[in-house]
Amino acid sequence: MGEAVSNGDADFVRLEAQKQLDAGADMLDVNGGVAGHEAEYLCWMVNVVQELGDIPICLDSADPAALRQALPLCKRTPMINSITAEPERINALSPLVKEFGTKVIALCLEASGTPKSADDRVATATRLIDQLTGAGIPVERIYVDPCVFPVSTGPEHGPALIDAIGMIKEGFPEVHISCGVSNVSFGLPERKLLNRVFLPMLLAKGMDTAILDPCDSQMMATIAASEALLGIDEFCMSYLEAHREGKLRG
Amino acid sequence: MGEAVSNGDADFVRLEAQKQLDAGADMLDVNGGVAGHEAEYLCWMVNVVQELGDIPICLDSADPAALRQALPLCKRTPMINSITAEPERINALSPLVKEFGTKVIALCLEASGTPKSADDRVATATRLIDQLTGAGIPVERIYVDPCVFPVSTGPEHGPALIDAIGMIKEGFPEVHISCGVSNVSFGLPERKLLNRVFLPMLLAKGMDTAILDPCDSQMMATIAASEALLGIDEFCMSYLEAHREGKLRG
Repeated sequence: MGEAVSNGDADFVRLEAQKQLDAGADMLDVNGGVAGHEAEYLCWMVNVVQELGDIPICLDSADPAALRQALPLCKRTPMINSITAEPERINALSPLVKEFGTKVIALCLEASGTPKSADDRVATATRLIDQLTGAGIPVERIYVDPCVFPVSTGPEHGPALIDAIGMIKEGFPEVHISCGVSNVSFGLPERKLLNRVFLPMLLAKGMDTAILDPCDSQMMATIAASEALLGIDEFCMSYLEAHREGKLRG
Repeated sequence: MGEAVSNGDADFVRLEAQKQLDAGADMLDVNGGVAGHEAEYLCWMVNVVQELGDIPICLDSADPAALRQALPLCKRTPMINSITAEPERINALSPLVKEFGTKVIALCLEASGTPKSADDRVATATRLIDQLTGAGIPVERIYVDPCVFPVSTGPEHGPALIDAIGMIKEGFPEVHISCGVSNVSFGLPERKLLNRVFLPMLLAKGMDTAILDPCDSQMMATIAASEALLGIDEFCMSYLEAHREGKLRG
């Protein structure tokens, strides 16, 4: 994708976007992260993707200048991925979230480093939510990302994340929870298996948004099954539809 | 299996038992439930299964007479499946649990009927635990089964069960939780998918025992992945071993 963007290959970008939409993505993560060209590439990608329709877009950038240029191009209210608790980043980005009425991923990351325990995550999430709502951003537009770490680097990382989600939802029932699920499996074999086993654990705790590969059909079947099991998909209507469409078979 | 037992087909029973052991079962559920022959069949099965070795056995019977005959035959401390909160059943079975020092599944079922909410389950579990421990049975030998209902019959059943597990473990950290996972998918297509998506949700809440088909290789891979993610399998050693043995591929 990086190469396609550098070469201005709009066909490649559109094809990938269409594939993700066809696979069931609710929102497309658009990342123009090529050093020195971020604003230019981000805007170009937003325009290319929107040739397919008024697609909900998640602007995957922490560069305020790039975001300020890309935000007015979005035809539907976008999401910004992400703000952190680092003072510079929150001060630069929260005015944009406010001005453009966007959704925002609030990543549990401090200037002092990454979170270790569930309590660390809850403390950072609380600070982020307080600062964002203090700046006039409604809590229901905040998507807390509790920061997924690979379980290959420590047995405490899975339980800490799971507990953090429960604690954050208990403290702030209206906030959304979003995770980059696949980080959990970094460094281990059969990553897709780990990712799709981790997802139901997080959904059961209150996660309602995830950044993942919608073209992973077994993951999408796992989501359909999870929603049926959690009663989100009332009387399993969507699950039964997915079955009729042959989407539940790995 | 019922037919094999009626015909005294020991080869069939041994083969099935060996298959389940090879697939990774920690304990074998032995059910002699043929009307009028329960004691005879249960004892026969226990003896046949134990020809394979000193296998941990779960005696799947609520018939005190059958259990009293089968219990002395078990070479390793067995489990009884199950006791309920129905006064007759608890009064008849708890002396056997005490006398033979067995583990016991305490199913959240009242004489007045099946549980509806998480609170119903917690109330019945509390009564069962109080009565069993009051009768001198150590809490760590009790495996509470919160009673899994099919989500096809109501969207509330999944969340009620998940919440109940969390609440029971909070009240009684030393009690075990066991579920008959596959009940959840009754009446829906792709049952194995639902079963293996439900399992991680329950494990994340504190379930540590399950009655399931160990020959379902995708389910067993899900268990290996869940234990890696939950830090039960410290530093993923068992997960990596399962990978090397080719057991993680569906």
